[in-house]
Amino acid sequence: MSNLSWVEIPPAHCFSLANIPFGVITYEGAPKPRPAIAIGSNALDLKVFAQGGGFADLPDSGAVIRTFDDTKLGEFAALGRTVHKQVREYLQKIFAKDTPFPGRLRDDSNLRNASLLPLSKVQAHLPLHIGDYTDFYVGKNHAYNVGVLFRGADNALQPNYTHLPVAYHGRASSVVVSGTPVRRPWGQILNDQKKPVWSPSKKLDIELELGVFMAKGNKQSSGIRVGDAEDYIFGYVLLNDWSARDIQAWEYVPLGPFNSKNFASTISSWVVLADAFEPFRTEGIRNSSPIQPYLQQNVSKAAFDIKLQISVQASRAKEASIIARSNSKHLLWSFPQMIAHHTVGGCNLNTGDLLGSGTISGTEQGSQGSLLELTGGGKNPIHINGKSRVFLEDGDTVSLRGWAELPSGERVGFGSCNAMILPAWKDGYEG
Amino acid sequence: MSNLSWVEIPPAHCFSLANIPFGVITYEGAPKPRPAIAIGSNALDLKVFAQGGGFADLPDSGAVIRTFDDTKLGEFAALGRTVHKQVREYLQKIFAKDTPFPGRLRDDSNLRNASLLPLSKVQAHLPLHIGDYTDFYVGKNHAYNVGVLFRGADNALQPNYTHLPVAYHGRASSVVVSGTPVRRPWGQILNDQKKPVWSPSKKLDIELELGVFMAKGNKQSSGIRVGDAEDYIFGYVLLNDWSARDIQAWEYVPLGPFNSKNFASTISSWVVLADAFEPFRTEGIRNSSPIQPYLQQNVSKAAFDIKLQISVQASRAKEASIIARSNSKHLLWSFPQMIAHHTVGGCNLNTGDLLGSGTISGTEQGSQGSLLELTGGGKNPIHINGKSRVFLEDGDTVSLRGWAELPSGERVGFGSCNAMILPAWKDGYEG
Repeated sequence: MSNLSWVEIPPAHCFSLANIPFGVITYEGAPKPRPAIAIGSNALDLKVFAQGGGFADLPDSGAVIRTFDDTKLGEFAALGRTVHKQVREYLQKIFAKDTPFPGRLRDDSNLRNASLLPLSKVQAHLPLHIGDYTDFYVGKNHAYNVGVLFRGADNALQPNYTHLPVAYHGRASSVVVSGTPVRRPWGQILNDQKKPVWSPSKKLDIELELGVFMAKGNKQSSGIRVGDAEDYIFGYVLLNDWSARDIQAWEYVPLGPFNSKNFASTISSWVVLADAFEPFRTEGIRNSSPIQPYLQQNVSKAAFDIKLQISVQASRAKEASIIARSNSKHLLWSFPQMIAHHTVGGCNLNTGDLLGSGTISGTEQGSQGSLLELTGGGKNPIHINGKSRVFLEDGDTVSLRGWAELPSGERVGFGSCNAMILPAWKDGYEG
Repeated sequence: MSNLSWVEIPPAHCFSLANIPFGVITYEGAPKPRPAIAIGSNALDLKVFAQGGGFADLPDSGAVIRTFDDTKLGEFAALGRTVHKQVREYLQKIFAKDTPFPGRLRDDSNLRNASLLPLSKVQAHLPLHIGDYTDFYVGKNHAYNVGVLFRGADNALQPNYTHLPVAYHGRASSVVVSGTPVRRPWGQILNDQKKPVWSPSKKLDIELELGVFMAKGNKQSSGIRVGDAEDYIFGYVLLNDWSARDIQAWEYVPLGPFNSKNFASTISSWVVLADAFEPFRTEGIRNSSPIQPYLQQNVSKAAFDIKLQISVQASRAKEASIIARSNSKHLLWSFPQMIAHHTVGGCNLNTGDLLGSGTISGTEQGSQGSLLELTGGGKNPIHINGKSRVFLEDGDTVSLRGWAELPSGERVGFGSCNAMILPAWKDGYEG
């Protein structure tokens, strides 16, 4: 594969010229968070690039440049998809080997030195202010697998499941960015005698999900039509919706998961713009139930063919074990359908709101997006670094990855979404 | 009852000298929201009062005064309960008939004219920025009543109910302040043949709740001990957690309510500070289950004796009908227990987070906090303005009220929490 950029992009790197994902960074000498893009093993500081005249060949760039003074991507996201597309295409031209604008960066060593930094030297932050976080449950294979474990095969999928995108409100405050350690939570669980006890969770689990960030919102009491919903999408991240299965099993009836989920949810640092995944459209899971008018989408390929992967590295292991390989196409409802359903009653979404897909499992052993499913509810251990395992142990580092691949071999992906598990506090509280 | 203040306070008015609730207002000539207190039929603009030297006799008032430049109460709330107490007591002295500081307001007609406004001339706004909204379910009588209707008497209360304060994450973006109209939501409901259809809700309901605003938060992965939780409470509001029962019944299994609740939740405009309710402590509902150590509270009177009331006025009726009388003591868990449980796994709360109690019902007919319960699931109509009714109709104005009363007759209460029901959009969407 020839390199299409004047920047070195290793083969099979997720941050190819076809990607241009957006994030928020700080680094030595730049302590105030600022928007950036990732390309190869580099980040481009968009604030510095803009100040150095980098956007001079982008028409009407004034409004765009002003958003790079924001400490998050919210102002940029709110400009809308047409602008995101223009800016992404412009930056692809800036980084193309035969760039039409060589003086803007390639041949300007001062600006290059000031704005282009090795990813290893930057710290990524939460890319948007998350006002509300909603987690859907539209990974049908996962819903079925978990339903079998919690309620038996006869009631695995509830009667509503194929009629609406099931969802619950999650906790926005505890969404953290990749790299943030996650501490094992305490909570109420049932002991061997089925009595509730206060204990650190013994069944800490992964949930492999796709997340979508909203570019713009809707007025309260005024829903978003399914046909318009694509325009409201900013981009995608990987999402690990950590789940304490023992806390969950005890608490979740009748109002859903609460403490089993709200201690932390981890997202990948870089937002892949909606347009970057357009070449990878494919069909999702077919739904044979009649679809209500507000969910009828006039699109044949409403899902994306994005390969997903979970790996775990135990504390003293030399390398990570890949424990699951899945694909983002295993969803029963599309993100536009989720957005239409979320707002059908008038609930107002805002720029920066995060919607999770729910856990994405395939149908075969080894393709499930959680340890609960991979181990059949803890009954059939898997191997991590050569050792028999059911749930997460202290010191494990969990890493989600996801990428789509063009015929050229160029990849569009997320980089990693990872976290190390810290031990629970000794007596339930810090200090 | 003699009037204790130099400001006229009508007998039985909720905003007595014993109250001093905090809010955020705008008014003609003051379009930027600013903190205020309510007393009698007046609001005191704290920003103008502070600028006019009103706090000159409050020691160390600099940090307090700076928070009144905030457009919400967040900065003031974050100062902590000791400061809230000092400021409230100072303002009680300012408004006392025999104020020790007559020159600060009573005898300064310029400052009085500039800072003291009739409530009828101010617009109240959401008092805090609500990062996350959590709704508990600790009104045991309500949980039992609804459980009977949804699952039958044998499974009315789930096995976990008396062991932990059940809760779910609500939608923060759609919390609105008293006076904001609420539009009837569309959604999926089951028709008479038990088939899902897309329709305006036909079972729009009220939920009478108490809400608590957090003064300060905790670090992620570091919980709040139950004995410390009182210090994290800023104050209380009334909360109407509107519920579309037909949408709820179809969607809520297995992950809890979503569109049935997220279209709107209404709170009263004025936050009654935690200290103002201290004289009204009483016992809540007794819990005979063993309590886990992290929920054991060393307080005999953990609930409050606050009278609660729901009234509804139909569109062409001349006055409102009181349809329910309840009391905030009908809770199985206290707010400190809710906070301890919410954070036991490390979930981080923030200043301005809103926690709802869940619907507060008594045990007798006429004391239930929802139409679902008052009408036995719609089977036994009640009377509103002389007409037989089961759920809310378009044009209804719902008003919640709540107050506690001192032996002197002085009341500490919320003012009203009200909203008019607007009809659903004709074809599901605005315009």
